[in-house]
Amino acid sequence: MSVYTPVSQHDLAAWLRQYSVGAPEKLEPIKPGIENTNYFVTTTQGRYVLTLFERLPAAELPFYLNLMAHLARHGIPCPAPIADLSDAFLGTLNGKPAALVTRLPGRSIEAPGEAECRELGLLLARLHLAARSYPAYLENPRGPRWWRMAARDVQPFLDAAHWRLLEAELEFQAQHRFPDLPRGPVHADLFRDNALFERGRLSGVIDFYFAGVDCLLYDVAVCANDWCLLDPAADRGLHLARTSAFLAAYHALRPFAPAEREAWPVLLRAAALRFWLSRLHDLHLPRPGELVHAHDPEHFRLVLERRVAQGAPWLEAT
Amino acid sequence: MSVYTPVSQHDLAAWLRQYSVGAPEKLEPIKPGIENTNYFVTTTQGRYVLTLFERLPAAELPFYLNLMAHLARHGIPCPAPIADLSDAFLGTLNGKPAALVTRLPGRSIEAPGEAECRELGLLLARLHLAARSYPAYLENPRGPRWWRMAARDVQPFLDAAHWRLLEAELEFQAQHRFPDLPRGPVHADLFRDNALFERGRLSGVIDFYFAGVDCLLYDVAVCANDWCLLDPAADRGLHLARTSAFLAAYHALRPFAPAEREAWPVLLRAAALRFWLSRLHDLHLPRPGELVHAHDPEHFRLVLERRVAQGAPWLEAT
Repeated sequence: MSVYTPVSQHDLAAWLRQYSVGAPEKLEPIKPGIENTNYFVTTTQGRYVLTLFERLPAAELPFYLNLMAHLARHGIPCPAPIADLSDAFLGTLNGKPAALVTRLPGRSIEAPGEAECRELGLLLARLHLAARSYPAYLENPRGPRWWRMAARDVQPFLDAAHWRLLEAELEFQAQHRFPDLPRGPVHADLFRDNALFERGRLSGVIDFYFAGVDCLLYDVAVCANDWCLLDPAADRGLHLARTSAFLAAYHALRPFAPAEREAWPVLLRAAALRFWLSRLHDLHLPRPGELVHAHDPEHFRLVLERRVAQGAPWLEAT
Repeated sequence: MSVYTPVSQHDLAAWLRQYSVGAPEKLEPIKPGIENTNYFVTTTQGRYVLTLFERLPAAELPFYLNLMAHLARHGIPCPAPIADLSDAFLGTLNGKPAALVTRLPGRSIEAPGEAECRELGLLLARLHLAARSYPAYLENPRGPRWWRMAARDVQPFLDAAHWRLLEAELEFQAQHRFPDLPRGPVHADLFRDNALFERGRLSGVIDFYFAGVDCLLYDVAVCANDWCLLDPAADRGLHLARTSAFLAAYHALRPFAPAEREAWPVLLRAAALRFWLSRLHDLHLPRPGELVHAHDPEHFRLVLERRVAQGAPWLEAT
């Protein structure tokens, strides 16, 4: 969507008086995004993003904001929440929970090559290592429990073949859980549009509002299903060189455990399932008043079918 | 000094493995500074300063590092300490307590004009407001107690006239304490060389290793005695337009209390006294093995004499 809750220059000026970031100079609504109202804010001090949370449960917001603060102070290039004069990250603006975070330089890229996939692998491993000392806990909010709920919701909208695929995959996933894989806070939505590059370097990872604790390898699978697809993506296979570059870079900083090698094909399927389900849900059950520009669910159904049909043998590079 | 404790490329690479800041690319010793060993460090992620603490009491280091982290997360452009994988800001490198902080852009300026003094006033007020919620406490380590100790140490090196000036000023300050002035964490050493400018904006405040809790107005006085001197500084008077710009900018964000207006001339003297004393001490009682390039104490003796002789009426601009 774009902006659910409008913020005026006047609202902003009043709100910023609770902060130490200087005087406002510019306020621009940000178009993309389906969960929150976002503005770019420029002050005499710097560049920020103002987010009004429209949908996320208020109780979960501290998990996300504190995680970003934790990662930022470990040197991970992610938005750093700014504390207000009462030392809180979370305030209220126009009736909505709201936060100010730093705005990172760089732009997302549509067609990553091996070099960018290598950058991503290094960054994701560093993020996972830095997140290990993060003390808060939130189960991945788009994990197996949510899959089952979402599947019930979207069932009326599916034809018989698609429902069979969905039901079978839920059953398969239920039979293949991996309680012993390394776990920790994961981004869980690190698609190309949530990564910024500047001069060939990954300069920012943004949008942590689907983060939660899960298998670290699940995060790797979410990335591979988006960053490493063959181009054109007609058959949704993985591009060998890009996938290898991504996994080898990750592995160099956080070596994969033997159990992770086994789990890989299953987690690639789980990552496809999660986004097929959420896109079906956004398409068929939009929230009232939502300005829909939902992504096409078909893409991730095809990714899932491809992973089911072919598996995904562990790649030699690692 | 420059570097007391050498750090090799190899030492650095090993040490950085405890961090999430990418791989080292460059290591350059930093010349200025009299308290610590400092290096510029460039990694695949960004630019940092590595500091090995040579002299500061280990028990005080968390106060400084946590204060910088606190200010950084409030949007103050100061070095942000980077936490290591065990979530600590402070480590040990080559036998010394050591920390990695972000390196800020910009350069210090020797001859600030009104515009730069205004920038400084705004930043100092924001820093004081943001620091109010900082919970730790450390008495200004160069406060009245230290003055008396330092005065005893340097007495043998002073001629009779200078000793009389020093003794009289200590006596005057003892009779003019202001327990009711607004207090909080102050930088206490914000000279021109500890501020960085980029494109006319104050882009960084560095070197918090003299910070402590004191009157906020003391911090203002330290700045005025350095930033607002007449140029040439022969008579050590304050430049009216620059002082007014500095104080008015500060006052716009944190209005001065009536008691602060009264205390102003006394605190300008206190700020001059403190630096006269520390420069005398550095000159006459250098630490063993120290590569002295001590500042000239005479400058601050003349500043003090000028403030004693003329007072410093509160400036109309505020």
